[in-house]
Amino acid sequence: MSVIVSLTVEDVRFPTSRELDGSDAMNPDPDYSAAYVTLRTDDGPDGHGFAFTIGRGNEVQCAAIRLLAGSVVGRDVEEVCADLGGFSRSLLADSQLRWLGPEKGVMHMAIGAVVNAAWDLAAKRAGLPVWRFLSRMTPEEIVGLVDWRYLTDALTPDEALDLLRAAEPGRAERAAALEDEGYPAYTTSPGWLGYDDVKLARLACEAVADGFDLIKLKVGADVEEDVRRLAVAREAVGPDVRIAIDANQRWSVPEAIGWLERLAQFDPWFIEEPTSPDDVLGHAAIRRAVAPMRVATGEHVQNRVVFKQLLQAGAIDVLQLDATRVAGINENVAILLLAAKFGVPVCPHAGGVGLCELVQHLSMFDFVAVSGSMRDRTIEYVDHLHEHFAAPVRSRRGRYLPPKEPGSGAEILETSRHRFRYPDGAAWSAES
Amino acid sequence: MSVIVSLTVEDVRFPTSRELDGSDAMNPDPDYSAAYVTLRTDDGPDGHGFAFTIGRGNEVQCAAIRLLAGSVVGRDVEEVCADLGGFSRSLLADSQLRWLGPEKGVMHMAIGAVVNAAWDLAAKRAGLPVWRFLSRMTPEEIVGLVDWRYLTDALTPDEALDLLRAAEPGRAERAAALEDEGYPAYTTSPGWLGYDDVKLARLACEAVADGFDLIKLKVGADVEEDVRRLAVAREAVGPDVRIAIDANQRWSVPEAIGWLERLAQFDPWFIEEPTSPDDVLGHAAIRRAVAPMRVATGEHVQNRVVFKQLLQAGAIDVLQLDATRVAGINENVAILLLAAKFGVPVCPHAGGVGLCELVQHLSMFDFVAVSGSMRDRTIEYVDHLHEHFAAPVRSRRGRYLPPKEPGSGAEILETSRHRFRYPDGAAWSAES
Repeated sequence: MSVIVSLTVEDVRFPTSRELDGSDAMNPDPDYSAAYVTLRTDDGPDGHGFAFTIGRGNEVQCAAIRLLAGSVVGRDVEEVCADLGGFSRSLLADSQLRWLGPEKGVMHMAIGAVVNAAWDLAAKRAGLPVWRFLSRMTPEEIVGLVDWRYLTDALTPDEALDLLRAAEPGRAERAAALEDEGYPAYTTSPGWLGYDDVKLARLACEAVADGFDLIKLKVGADVEEDVRRLAVAREAVGPDVRIAIDANQRWSVPEAIGWLERLAQFDPWFIEEPTSPDDVLGHAAIRRAVAPMRVATGEHVQNRVVFKQLLQAGAIDVLQLDATRVAGINENVAILLLAAKFGVPVCPHAGGVGLCELVQHLSMFDFVAVSGSMRDRTIEYVDHLHEHFAAPVRSRRGRYLPPKEPGSGAEILETSRHRFRYPDGAAWSAES
Repeated sequence: MSVIVSLTVEDVRFPTSRELDGSDAMNPDPDYSAAYVTLRTDDGPDGHGFAFTIGRGNEVQCAAIRLLAGSVVGRDVEEVCADLGGFSRSLLADSQLRWLGPEKGVMHMAIGAVVNAAWDLAAKRAGLPVWRFLSRMTPEEIVGLVDWRYLTDALTPDEALDLLRAAEPGRAERAAALEDEGYPAYTTSPGWLGYDDVKLARLACEAVADGFDLIKLKVGADVEEDVRRLAVAREAVGPDVRIAIDANQRWSVPEAIGWLERLAQFDPWFIEEPTSPDDVLGHAAIRRAVAPMRVATGEHVQNRVVFKQLLQAGAIDVLQLDATRVAGINENVAILLLAAKFGVPVCPHAGGVGLCELVQHLSMFDFVAVSGSMRDRTIEYVDHLHEHFAAPVRSRRGRYLPPKEPGSGAEILETSRHRFRYPDGAAWSAES
């Protein structure tokens, strides 16, 4: 029998605020960070996972992950890898820790990081990238990954089985198509608020030259500025490239509706996070008011229960799940199944640090084994910080190419972890 | 000028799980705990506040509070006390920390603990208990306490002003009535799942003898057990005492509806937490199905945005705010205003450690200056751990008596903090 012998946590932060990369109307100065967890076993590869944060507070996120060591260290590796559903449910079932959420915020993201590290471990032991590892599971195994509590009024395990069985026949063909063509991407690189017009126009043109047919701009700080920047971007890319906009939760519901009336002239492909991610009914009201403009949210949606309601209420046109906000791959599988049931396309949030590396596996699994479709689907792409990863994303002409390396993509190079460790790594200590 | 010279945090835990006090279907073995914060100034009383947790993870909650020291230490005490709205908004506005929620879970509760400590400080400096301190504010000052973001589709500042002005004339009379008669309470002491039938019947009879006309029983672990225990309780208290039931989030929506069909014969006064506190639409569906049984929730509702939706959706008959789950008194003032607008009675969650001491101030303020009513309103009362507080709750014949001591009620005696400090206090080190 082999066991998990340790769970260690590292506080890794990249000083991205120095260049205003990632600046938006809500988050002016993020330092992209990872509360990074490593599971070691006595007989094989390590498992890596992380929660993504934007700087201060990453140490609290690390402390929350460390708290889970007692529930993980000493467990039988083969058992964990053979029953990742049971593993994730066992972490969620600790009632004292559940009180800190329940199922939201710091403690929920901590569980997500550890669950994802177990997936990395399991996929590496199987010699497969996570998207393939998931795509080889039977419908019954996939259904067994999910914590069904609070879901059955919208989706039952039997309905999920039917969905998954319906998608079974085409799996091999779609996996081959992925290898050939990759998966659609869109880019936010031009659109950060901290960039001036020249940089915005230049980066927008470069994005189109690189093959992207959808770019995204941050909005929400000042409506006149937004009108001006959207005009600059539209002029730079021409009428055929789609432009999405992202308000990062800046608005109340009536404010969102008024502001979007001004921006509708630029025909945004979707408006992302117009208001609080908690406001299911608010998103539904905004969607009704701004139709046919499409409404998107999800990067800050705390768990499957809120996604369930966004779908039940007809509040969103685009579901933007995030790889590290919820309780790991298991909860994201539940969210993919819900989206498939309601026929809403999933366009994951990415960027930050390592989110592209992680989340591509979920979209590719969705294409192969769940929705079976790429229609209206695209993964956010930001060309930042990939060089720090053991298996960095590969993209070509505006598409993600499917990862070939075993695991989840979460592993950060040891040299980078060392250099950007907070506060004592060279990147930080040089500052003081 | 006087300043806040320090913010210190203590991890205080009471080993309540040893007696199964507080056991319910979701939380079998809580150790009631406080992540306890003290603000010291250079010229007056300390301010105390805490986040309530149930054991493991209290250290993470403490770490989150500690993180706020940088935003608090060195601030001008008079400025903070004169603008508690601005103070609370400044803590909520840190975008890097906001990412860890946003506005939910560990980081949000940390802000709540610090905000409440500032209220304790301000009220002590004014020589008033918090309920009186709040009740002397003008409608404009009260409206200025609130973070209005995400609320205006349901309640505008002007509407709140109208509500508060309408309640102004009767303030003095109602404060006097409070002094004379106290505020209604109900008790959960008999109803914990860990108690056997004999103890349940005995405690239920004692509660009635003590003057309570509403008791609450935990349900949700086993439906046959629930039927049996409700029959025991009903036999013990007779037909005229109301019995509420509390499922602590155990059920999915269809399960709640089926289970409650079995329990309806006992005419529960309300069903509390039938499902996930995140599930606005789920509560609305349950309420429609089990009417006229009343639906209650709130102790785990993360913030004002979710309360807003519960009210907008007609999902609850009883709003159970909690003193330490949201971002402190300021956010709870917003929640009281929302409840008043929608005409839903507020019956706060209490118990735990210190929640009775804190939350009574909010209900009393609501009676004096917001809703102006006690009708269908009652505060949970559990007779646990009050002896550890500098100003313990006083009750008489099933009613809370209004606190007279200056401050918020949060201060735990230094001897108790010392003895129950985790892990090195005598109450814990004796265990090993």
